[in-house]
Amino acid sequence: MAERWQLPDGIEELLPEQAGQLEGVRRQLLDLYARWGYQFVMPPLLEFTESLLVGLGEDLDLQTFKVIDQHSGRMLGVRADITPQTARIDAHSMIAEGAQRLCYAGSVLRAKPAGIKASRAPIQVGAELYGISDVAADVEVISLMLTSLSALGIADVTLDLGHVGIYRALVAGAQLDNQAQQHLFELLQNKSHSELESWLSESVKDTDIATQLKTLAGLNGGVQVLAQARELSDSAEVQQALDDLETLANLVQQRFPGTNLYFDLSELRGYKYHTGLVFAAYVPGVGRALANGGRYNDIGAAFGRARPATGFNADLKILLSIGETTKADAPNVVLAPLSNDPQLWQLVCELRAAGTTVINDLDASENGHSGPVIAKDENEQWRVVPSP
Amino acid sequence: MAERWQLPDGIEELLPEQAGQLEGVRRQLLDLYARWGYQFVMPPLLEFTESLLVGLGEDLDLQTFKVIDQHSGRMLGVRADITPQTARIDAHSMIAEGAQRLCYAGSVLRAKPAGIKASRAPIQVGAELYGISDVAADVEVISLMLTSLSALGIADVTLDLGHVGIYRALVAGAQLDNQAQQHLFELLQNKSHSELESWLSESVKDTDIATQLKTLAGLNGGVQVLAQARELSDSAEVQQALDDLETLANLVQQRFPGTNLYFDLSELRGYKYHTGLVFAAYVPGVGRALANGGRYNDIGAAFGRARPATGFNADLKILLSIGETTKADAPNVVLAPLSNDPQLWQLVCELRAAGTTVINDLDASENGHSGPVIAKDENEQWRVVPSP
Repeated sequence: MAERWQLPDGIEELLPEQAGQLEGVRRQLLDLYARWGYQFVMPPLLEFTESLLVGLGEDLDLQTFKVIDQHSGRMLGVRADITPQTARIDAHSMIAEGAQRLCYAGSVLRAKPAGIKASRAPIQVGAELYGISDVAADVEVISLMLTSLSALGIADVTLDLGHVGIYRALVAGAQLDNQAQQHLFELLQNKSHSELESWLSESVKDTDIATQLKTLAGLNGGVQVLAQARELSDSAEVQQALDDLETLANLVQQRFPGTNLYFDLSELRGYKYHTGLVFAAYVPGVGRALANGGRYNDIGAAFGRARPATGFNADLKILLSIGETTKADAPNVVLAPLSNDPQLWQLVCELRAAGTTVINDLDASENGHSGPVIAKDENEQWRVVPSP
Repeated sequence: MAERWQLPDGIEELLPEQAGQLEGVRRQLLDLYARWGYQFVMPPLLEFTESLLVGLGEDLDLQTFKVIDQHSGRMLGVRADITPQTARIDAHSMIAEGAQRLCYAGSVLRAKPAGIKASRAPIQVGAELYGISDVAADVEVISLMLTSLSALGIADVTLDLGHVGIYRALVAGAQLDNQAQQHLFELLQNKSHSELESWLSESVKDTDIATQLKTLAGLNGGVQVLAQARELSDSAEVQQALDDLETLANLVQQRFPGTNLYFDLSELRGYKYHTGLVFAAYVPGVGRALANGGRYNDIGAAFGRARPATGFNADLKILLSIGETTKADAPNVVLAPLSNDPQLWQLVCELRAAGTTVINDLDASENGHSGPVIAKDENEQWRVVPSP
């Protein structure tokens, strides 16, 4: 019984100060997204797992809390990510030709935390842009992501940029079976350069491709890695990916001159569903991304319509912990005495309608209230007066 | 695959028009509660079932989706109700002497719908007042509930009022075992008057008490039932309950003259955890309550602090379906051409900062846009111009 108040690991409650700030950030970002033309949708917290997990690979599956639907006998999942839900909406519920912009803010649950101290109940906010395969769409969502951070006073942002298409193009030439591809993927993800080197020399017959893959693993740093990558391969996919990264880099530098760019061409975050540009925003001293996203074309195919797709999302709780938390000024609280006089009620209604916070002094003990109170004046009329 | 877009029964998604309206209602109500001094809290979506279900009886238990926590091996529940979470916060996380006001708005999940066509994913909004046992606290929360409805343009409201203390006092004298009490409770809930009568004559020895219970079952209607109930019993609890109902009725009539009052003294909704006044708001043609609540003293005991408690909650989706849905005026959307010109970016940023919605014309196909666009004027300066 003594522990009934405990919360599970990675599950937080927000008390008034934090909850109020989070609500403020939520409104600020949703209003921002509306001004960029992103339409607010509210996908459900719970869906059939076969809808929720489609095309998104094992990671999301392991992250998803599952229950049996007593009604249908089918498996339900509490969403661990809202992005695939908006893809379903774009593919099925809101059929549009051309560009469609959607945004959302809502709770997700994770069976396992994404990392040490990570929340298992993030409040995910994000924006997704469907129907446009050109890099201009990626530029737009990255611009919106960076604008979101600067709106919250988050400075000194580093934008990590990658493109899974480069790795995809190189590995396609290596003729590896699934198991070998999986192993190569893990070596790259773990940045195990010496292991990678020995594995490549053993397992990849074509020494050109082995060299390309080895080089790719080292292609991270400033904008100069794009020029180095140009030498990797003549493949049209690789060159197009580099063109896109260059366009993006130029525009981000121009529009957000305070943002640092970091390229990591072997970064394969979300490789299982990402299909092109991938990106994430970091700030110094925080070990995880504040916001991230990427291109994930064609997930909608599972819902009947393959569509180009790109977008980003963030956890409001993380943004709140890093952003400028402008502590809201304490509202001008007026204390009303306990009385059933209709004229007092009338005055209280008027004050509240005008935006004033009025608290009924139910127990005549509103501790330490030093602000105005309502009292009767010499003519027996209720008035707001300074604290007596 | 063709069905991947299906949602489970009782689970809805909200597309932009509805989602936008719901967000508007959410903000409106939370801002209202703030002006009444209610502090916004965000309890977690997921808790240990032993915290979530404490003192709330079987109904909530059956309603709660449960999963095993992979981390602790303990049972977790996705909340089906936020009220007990705020009771935990009042008892443990935010220790206050005297009055404490909390409000919330968040998703809950129900393993079974509460009725035909009821949602299994309501968005619960509510306000709870702790620390005050006087009826003045019930008056305040009922006033706030009725103000919420009128703020949303919901008129012709009937307020159902009951008090579980009357039944409790009468049944205490009947010396029934648990099984018999449960049976009596069900007969009253089902309004099975003839069955009730025969059961009472068989099972309740004390004919006075049997008569009292039979009479109670018929005590519903206008304010006159309070006078009839006065005759039922001299018990101090019964008389106090009737005093409270009278006080409440008078104030509601005075403050909300358009509200109809309906008394049902055998209404035992939430009997397992309610301890005093219970209330619900209805409108004609809608078979279920729009909002309801009641007194539930001492639930906090399980978390270390027994406290007086009263409050109400509602489902934003139901409120939205009944309230005046003032369709937001379509925003004044400006279409921006696709160009990487920094001066265009500058203008777009300024327009958005001033509250204008600006959409990038990514596919030169913003179907049917007839509003203003951004174009270059004769001096090669970007300007907003009426649709060409």
